[in-house]
This record gives sequence, structure tokens and C-alpha cells, in this order.
Amino acid sequence: MNDLAIKKTVMVDATTSIYPVQKSHQGQLEALDDCVAEEVPIALIYNGISHAVMLATPQDLKEFALGFSLSEGILTSAKELYDIEIVHQEKGIELHLDVATERFQQLKERRRSMAGRTGCGLCGSESLDQALRIPETLIESNLQFDSAAIYKAHQAIQAKQELQALTGATHASAWVKPDGEVVMVREDVGRHNALDKLIGAMALAGTSKEGFVLTTSRASYEMVQKVITAGIPMLVAISAPTGLAIRIAQGCGLTLVGFARSHQHVIYSRADRVLYK
Amino acid sequence: MNDLAIKKTVMVDATTSIYPVQKSHQGQLEALDDCVAEEVPIALIYNGISHAVMLATPQDLKEFALGFSLSEGILTSAKELYDIEIVHQEKGIELHLDVATERFQQLKERRRSMAGRTGCGLCGSESLDQALRIPETLIESNLQFDSAAIYKAHQAIQAKQELQALTGATHASAWVKPDGEVVMVREDVGRHNALDKLIGAMALAGTSKEGFVLTTSRASYEMVQKVITAGIPMLVAISAPTGLAIRIAQGCGLTLVGFARSHQHVIYSRADRVLYK
Repeated sequence: MNDLAIKKTVMVDATTSIYPVQKSHQGQLEALDDCVAEEVPIALIYNGISHAVMLATPQDLKEFALGFSLSEGILTSAKELYDIEIVHQEKGIELHLDVATERFQQLKERRRSMAGRTGCGLCGSESLDQALRIPETLIESNLQFDSAAIYKAHQAIQAKQELQALTGATHASAWVKPDGEVVMVREDVGRHNALDKLIGAMALAGTSKEGFVLTTSRASYEMVQKVITAGIPMLVAISAPTGLAIRIAQGCGLTLVGFARSHQHVIYSRADRVLYK
Repeated sequence: MNDLAIKKTVMVDATTSIYPVQKSHQGQLEALDDCVAEEVPIALIYNGISHAVMLATPQDLKEFALGFSLSEGILTSAKELYDIEIVHQEKGIELHLDVATERFQQLKERRRSMAGRTGCGLCGSESLDQALRIPETLIESNLQFDSAAIYKAHQAIQAKQELQALTGATHASAWVKPDGEVVMVREDVGRHNALDKLIGAMALAGTSKEGFVLTTSRASYEMVQKVITAGIPMLVAISAPTGLAIRIAQGCGLTLVGFARSHQHVIYSRADRVLYK
């Protein structure tokens, strides 16, 4: 049972795994096989230089790589990504991105200025100056959405969360047309990864930005930052926003909706884009 | 409305903020003031060297600093932390930790070996080798828990989530005695921050490790890693575990319980520590 080797196993080829469990329900004990979601260290490597490692569910990895690059402002369009190679290693997965020289130079510059100020850390941006990447964008969209579209999307998303149905462990981000039709869903153990996968899938498909994103998570800083950087006019979250997320949404002209339920929601920013009939 | 200055405001002095919102409920529109949780960039600075920035809710910051240091293996006991100074800056909060020279040397060594291999990144560990910090610990505790204690703790925690009651946006980690009594709760927008605050509070209070942690979140890799590093024998999560978390729990001898409800739970590792009468 206490085999120290077990813990070193990273499952790089599987989105889910099956484990024998003991379930207690209403006083009854039952031995079952349970399906759980995997999380795997995934390294993003640009033109040979390792840039970041995210813990993510290993599916839709090309979309993830492109979406992360776009939502973090490393690339400005899908055309700047020439190729992606997925390499499975023992300790995780490497995504090797071949990107436009100009973007790679910018990334190196960004990294050099940081290294000069702070050195290298273990877990993230190291000084307050680098901690937040607040978009400079102002979303100018004149699009308006019927409030019924928000309710419709909320009712539709659950049936499309395949990984969540299997594991109960994953968040989803959905792309929703103005009429409330859910056209695309991506899932991941990390809410921001699910959003990056969606943004990447949209870029690959050449999807118009006329619509909104529905996320099953809270609307924290990085969700709002990524949606704004992707140029999407509205983010609907099933759970709460943070104060920082609200201020960024207000400053950048993003419509931010929280606590989306079947017959309820709360609008925190640019409520003029939502119509009630 | 689109004031670009708004978005630069980081609220370093407030745990919550009030925002005017528009709420739609069962077809009725209402203008309300809503209380939301703040997230603030918080820099952890060891003996003058900036090490990491976390987005966290700005309360219980001394506990957070100590708990993070212990759960990430930077310090091995509260005694190695001589002083903490909290400095409020425009862009966030700096936690200046004055730590034992030996620990600081180890941290510098850890950072130097990383810098040599990979340079400096924007968002986290940069190569797969550094992505996971898998504990070497084997939890030897012979403690056993009555299953009723898990139910009791689950029923008790909600009433003690003060920030969650105000904002609906925060996770909680609770320290629970073997009989199910919830003795300490810490909250944060980040589940791992809530756990770090709890671990820090326990270290400051000299709390015995004879009990378990209940978290309102999923049991992902970092939750399991932190609980094991803190030497706690059981983690109970209200939501699902990941496959990686299960394997680490099994390898390190942690009892891992998921999907904790009023009359239900699922045990993923070391089920022998839970007794059913």
C-alpha cells in the first residue's frame, strides 16, 4: 500500500483513470471502481525555450497551446504559430511551439527584463510588478444579448460536459452564440486551462467573436484577463466574481455576469449589453 | 464607465468590497449592492529576496506566510521564522519573512539550480523536472477516525465560512478534531491559500496533528502535497480528487476522502483509517 514508487507515476496518455474506492452512502459501504480526471504537468516550450508548466488535463493539447499563447499575449493570431509538436515524457508532456520570430523575440525580451529584476522562482511571477497582466484593450463591441440567451446556455452546458459527467472533477468553458446556443465546450481540471482550450479551438476554427463565454467556475482575475485579451465582449460565470475581476472588466468594457443559474444572474459590469424583454 | 484607471486599482486594505449590481431573478430586475471577495497579489520575500507572488484574499497574512513556507518545504518549523513584516504597496502586498540562515541558504541553492537549467519565467515552474514537488514523507500515523466525524465536520463547516457567506466566492479549509469538531477555519479565493493559512495558524497555535483537514474544494495535486508535507494523516474534500492526487496519497500513506456530503463520501486511499460502526 505504501509503495513510494506509486506516487511518481504521471499519467501522460490518459485523460481519466479508474481507481478502486470505498463508498459510504446512507450508512451503506460499497466497493466500487471510480473514474477520476488526470492532471499532468504540461510544459509550453517556444522555439526551444521552456516558458511555463501548467497542470492540466491532457486532451485538446494543440488548442490549449494556441489558446494559452493568445490569451497570455505571447501570440496575436493563430497564423503566428507555425507548428506544434507534442512530446510525451516520463514526468509530463512537452508542447513544442514553433512561433514567428518577431513574437519569440518579444517573449525573450519580456523574460530578460524580468530575470534582470528578480532572478528565477519556483512558483510564479516573483515581484508585484509582474504579478498582474492587465489588458490594455477596450472592448468596443456594440453587441447586445437577450437575457434569455444566458438562461438557455446555462441549461445546455451540463449535458455537454462529458469529462465532468465521468469524473465530477472538471471545469468547462463554453462558446455561446448570441441566441444562447452552446456551440463548443472544452474541459479541464483547471478553469483557466478549459478557457485557454476554448480560445485555441475558436482561433483554429476561425470562430467569430460575436457571442459570449460561459464558464462553470468563478470569475477570477485570470478568467477576465484572458477573455478580454481574446477580444470577447461578455463573460458569464456560474459562480462569483472577485473585486479585482470586476474592476478590470469595468476598466476594459467587458460585460461580466456572475451567479448564472436557471432563472437568475447578477451583472457586475456593462449591463447595457444585456436586454430584458 | 470605460475608465482605464479603474482597472489598475488593487485593493490592498480590504478583504471584501461592495459593488452596485443589477440582479435578474425569476424575470424581475433589481439594483443591489453586492459584497465581493478581493484577490490581491501577495509577494513572499525571504531575507530580502522575492520568491513568489500568489493571488490571495488579504487576511490572516502572517498565518499565510508561515503556512506557505511550511507546506512548500521552505521552512521545517515555525521556529525558523524569526519575523514577518507586512508592507502594503500600490500593486499589492509584500510579506517580508526573516528566516533562519540555513533555510535561506537552502532556498537560494534550490533557486540557483533552477536558474541554471531554465532561466526565469512568467508563470511558474518552467520545466517538467521542477513542476511537481512530490513529498518524500511517509505518514505513519496509527490514528483512526469514526466515519461519523466526517459527516459532523461537513455539517459544521458551512456556518463557520464567514467570508463565503458574505461573498459566495471563497474556499475554506478546516482543522477537525478526531471527534468531528471543527476547531479552526481559514478562507481565501484560492483553495491552496486557505489551506496554507490553516497550516500556518496551526503551527502558530502549536496544534497537534491528531485530526484531519476538511476542504470545500477538490483534492488536486497541490492540496494533497501540502497536507502531506504538513504531516497531517487525512484530507477530506467536498469535491473530487484527481488521479495524480490519489497516487501521491497512496504513495505517501495519506487517507484521502472525496465527495464528502452529509450522508456520503468516497475513500481513495488508506481506507483503514476510517471506521464504520
